[in-house]
Amino acid sequence: MTLTPEQTAEIATARAGATPTLRATVPALEAMLFTALPVLDHGFVRVVDYMGDDAAVVQAARVSYGRGTRRALEDEGLIRYLMRHHHSTPFEMCEIKFHVKLPIFVARQWIRHRTANVNEYSARYSILDKDYYIPEPGQLAAQSSSNRQGRGEVLDSQTATRVLALLREDAEQTYGHYEEMLSEETGLARELARMNLTLNTYTQWYWKTDLHNLFHFLRLRADSHAQYEIRVYAEAMMETVKAWVPLSYNAFCDYRLGAVTFSAKMMAVLRKLLADEPVDQASSGLSKREWAEMLAALGR
Amino acid sequence: MTLTPEQTAEIATARAGATPTLRATVPALEAMLFTALPVLDHGFVRVVDYMGDDAAVVQAARVSYGRGTRRALEDEGLIRYLMRHHHSTPFEMCEIKFHVKLPIFVARQWIRHRTANVNEYSARYSILDKDYYIPEPGQLAAQSSSNRQGRGEVLDSQTATRVLALLREDAEQTYGHYEEMLSEETGLARELARMNLTLNTYTQWYWKTDLHNLFHFLRLRADSHAQYEIRVYAEAMMETVKAWVPLSYNAFCDYRLGAVTFSAKMMAVLRKLLADEPVDQASSGLSKREWAEMLAALGR
Amino acid sequence: MTLTPEQTAEIATARAGATPTLRATVPALEAMLFTALPVLDHGFVRVVDYMGDDAAVVQAARVSYGRGTRRALEDEGLIRYLMRHHHSTPFEMCEIKFHVKLPIFVARQWIRHRTANVNEYSARYSILDKDYYIPEPGQLAAQSSSNRQGRGEVLDSQTATRVLALLREDAEQTYGHYEEMLSEETGLARELARMNLTLNTYTQWYWKTDLHNLFHFLRLRADSHAQYEIRVYAEAMMETVKAWVPLSYNAFCDYRLGAVTFSAKMMAVLRKLLADEPVDQASSGLSKREWAEMLAALGR
Amino acid sequence: MTLTPEQTAEIATARAGATPTLRATVPALEAMLFTALPVLDHGFVRVVDYMGDDAAVVQAARVSYGRGTRRALEDEGLIRYLMRHHHSTPFEMCEIKFHVKLPIFVARQWIRHRTANVNEYSARYSILDKDYYIPEPGQLAAQSSSNRQGRGEVLDSQTATRVLALLREDAEQTYGHYEEMLSEETGLARELARMNLTLNTYTQWYWKTDLHNLFHFLRLRADSHAQYEIRVYAEAMMETVKAWVPLSYNAFCDYRLGAVTFSAKMMAVLRKLLADEPVDQASSGLSKREWAEMLAALGR
Repeated sequence: MTLTPEQTAEIATARAGATPTLRATVPALEAMLFTALPVLDHGFVRVVDYMGDDAAVVQAARVSYGRGTRRALEDEGLIRYLMRHHHSTPFEMCEIKFHVKLPIFVARQWIRHRTANVNEYSARYSILDKDYYIPEPGQLAAQSSSNRQGRGEVLDSQTATRVLALLREDAEQTYGHYEEMLSEETGLARELARMNLTLNTYTQWYWKTDLHNLFHFLRLRADSHAQYEIRVYAEAMMETVKAWVPLSYNAFCDYRLGAVTFSAKMMAVLRKLLADEPVDQASSGLSKREWAEMLAALGR
Repeated sequence: MTLTPEQTAEIATARAGATPTLRATVPALEAMLFTALPVLDHGFVRVVDYMGDDAAVVQAARVSYGRGTRRALEDEGLIRYLMRHHHSTPFEMCEIKFHVKLPIFVARQWIRHRTANVNEYSARYSILDKDYYIPEPGQLAAQSSSNRQGRGEVLDSQTATRVLALLREDAEQTYGHYEEMLSEETGLARELARMNLTLNTYTQWYWKTDLHNLFHFLRLRADSHAQYEIRVYAEAMMETVKAWVPLSYNAFCDYRLGAVTFSAKMMAVLRKLLADEPVDQASSGLSKREWAEMLAALGR
Repeated sequence: MTLTPEQTAEIATARAGATPTLRATVPALEAMLFTALPVLDHGFVRVVDYMGDDAAVVQAARVSYGRGTRRALEDEGLIRYLMRHHHSTPFEMCEIKFHVKLPIFVARQWIRHRTANVNEYSARYSILDKDYYIPEPGQLAAQSSSNRQGRGEVLDSQTATRVLALLREDAEQTYGHYEEMLSEETGLARELARMNLTLNTYTQWYWKTDLHNLFHFLRLRADSHAQYEIRVYAEAMMETVKAWVPLSYNAFCDYRLGAVTFSAKMMAVLRKLLADEPVDQASSGLSKREWAEMLAALGR
Repeated sequence: MTLTPEQTAEIATARAGATPTLRATVPALEAMLFTALPVLDHGFVRVVDYMGDDAAVVQAARVSYGRGTRRALEDEGLIRYLMRHHHSTPFEMCEIKFHVKLPIFVARQWIRHRTANVNEYSARYSILDKDYYIPEPGQLAAQSSSNRQGRGEVLDSQTATRVLALLREDAEQTYGHYEEMLSEETGLARELARMNLTLNTYTQWYWKTDLHNLFHFLRLRADSHAQYEIRVYAEAMMETVKAWVPLSYNAFCDYRLGAVTFSAKMMAVLRKLLADEPVDQASSGLSKREWAEMLAALGR
């Protein structure tokens, strides 16, 4: 990621001007506010505003009047209880706003999360910068043979070189023609010229959501099955959430990210396993795939 | 409205503890933060958290990097442009959280606004306070003869006295029986006992929404056709919005609250009126009701 | 539940008039369309419209062109896969509309599910019928001693009789006064008079949602922890879903209703249990409550 | 638009199999069900399912029991009243599902409408067809000089030829390289290879929404300020809505599409104009832009 000198100066300015507030503040998040966390080759995520903290979750759950006595242990227990039992509304009382720079094909996945507010850089109104995503060679993976929407082995070096050259040359050429179409001589409308750009072109947006919906996003996108190019954004955002609401973050890691759900049929198998009763896939009612997933989860 | 000594003390505590933040702060809103604005006989509205300001709206519209130069005049023009052309997403970048105490029948109207986050005092979990709404005699209006869902003339004094007595006695009696059912002797589950309460019993909740959806709420609920008992909440909230985002508030008043929409057929009539051409209801294509509404809007 | 003769006649009329359509139809659901399933003493649920079927879920998942070959086995496997991996958008392609008559305190819980469309009978516009909910004696439970929002033992017969008398008398009295306020002599506005009604008064609404959000509703409300008075509605709706989309319904029962989620910490315990390693609550990192919940889930 | 023989056969099959239903059916919409309406050079819109009709809107407004007497005139008046006064929930009781084939840059605008259900063709899972959008020469417009996000004059023939050649060559080349990356020799994962495609590549999705949100979409996208490439989709959808719910469609055209909203300040000007009082831009409080917009709306 390369920030322009103007951007660096703006961040410095924004970070200089503390003002007093009566609202809940979180020093650990203030420490990283506005700062850009680099993601991929030209992307970033940065927190530009937030509202609420762990205590706001607790307060909403208690709907008590005021912020109450801070009893760390009890608060943690309550937050864990809320997370465990899917009482999601108290987590909706916290809100966060990110500024994100990301490739368009990542933005297309991201926007499927509908319960959020978005303002994207408009290519009808402005000219997109010449920034496009080129994967690291170590990320140039072959199509997975077992998973229809995943990656398998990394490409050999020669093939990788060829792919990178294609990606780079096509991005350069299509961006060059985009510029030509927008030039004074040609003068094509921006809303038309943009269609010549490739899907690895970077865009940027403000993206604002509440903590419950952010956790839902992170559960899906920080998961190992998520595409690498969106997962790295989710991972950077995990760092900011950890600084912001540490109790909620820990409960999320325990009850969502690291949790495993067993179906009714799987529970029947599990009870037999624990009772040392014989059980096999054929008689379990589970498909081969489910059987394998279950054994993997149990570390067998 | 009567706050308990505990509540008053809690508000004082919350207002005592300013901390520094790098986020946008709005001194005029900080000045009223946590303070309860009285509404009806026992209700209130108070702002307990907020995020963003007028500049956040402008910034989202520009998706510039950082907060930019503050050029008040240009910012105001841009905000007015956004409001006029229904570009609503920049207003979604601001968020506000209210703590509200309100009668249940008002809460039932309010909750129909779905794009908001809510945590309500739970009568399964806790016992509701003995607070019920009794209208001022001046609000005891007869059913409107022209509007099937509105109010007409105020009841005469004797009838009003009878109605107030009924409301008061029934609220006292049903609350008394609610207490009896919850007593140690009877011990009925709270989730059942609550069904004996009347709809004017007060409840309370945290209600959080973004500025765009708040404006939508206010347009409908601060309108003269809204039921008085919810309108007074909307009016109190208007004061907080005015302090929070004065430029957006003014644009809202001009382009929404005070605006009038003319249908295609009405526009044809209007153009004839301006050209001094003859026009009457019969030939206008407007219903009698529309015709009357249009003339009223034009001050004729 | 008592339907008026008019209602019975209207249902008969609605059920008489089949017309041809090119859309997917589900004979098992058509067989119960418009018919009222009784719930509680005066309530009901009935399906009044629907869109899509199991094949629509499959089609959306495949985004194939047209409805494809119907290969029952493959379709079922795909639907189970979607449910297991929380790929929820294909289930959103089915929509259903219910007409529900329910006590107001149940409606207040129900409405918290925001992703739905609702049109409720308006007590500003019309007069509510004299229908109020009185529990069966067998449902008159004491407050749970272990669960702050649940029920415990059933009240003894004498106490139950007293509670039922209170509920009935207060409902009768408040409704009587409601009628008096609305009478020609008094003439109070309907929007005011309604505040004198108790929360067990019945209301009714049309409620429309998609299959994904319906499953979310049913998971929470058909759960044994849900309040009995809303659970019986959820159970009646389960019957309609079973008739409508049997494959999706079965997947829902297996992967949601009957499923158990183990946290990361619980998984560590589980792996030890399966390896016959010693483990106890104190060293597990689980709270006593979690430990008990886990053992219960494992049938130990 | 070119349908493959398989697609044409599937549509014919789908249109062959009428079955009886007790639900509301709309013959005029059944007549076009599944049929693809061509849009742009390779795109289409087709209705693949629907639920409800004008009577469902009326019924929801009345929350009557059953479908009531069909009194066309009264129904129309009620629908017009609902539209005029922004009583939007009854329109939410109707639902429609489209299958759309559209360029990715159009899909990116479209998806900003969040209150809808979407299943898109997945380029992680499948290979995108070689279909890209090339504008008609008559649509190759220059950037507008007055509107920062609009189009102005059509490009001259020579410049247009150059632009079309660039668009075509770049689309051909990037698609060719996409195929090479996916070839057996290279074997790059589909989720990576797709990033080399240009934004005018066609994608397709199922898109389902309710009538209220569809009207909101159409108001913005069938508007003359919308980009041509999305407006033509909106216009095709208008035809389907006209067939489906003719009363609601007419009310929408009168009160939304053809309507004009005057701000509070504009209303003050308007009243002076009607009273033949002198008024000019300088003293009106309107900006020059607003003044011009107002005069244009009044046909002056």
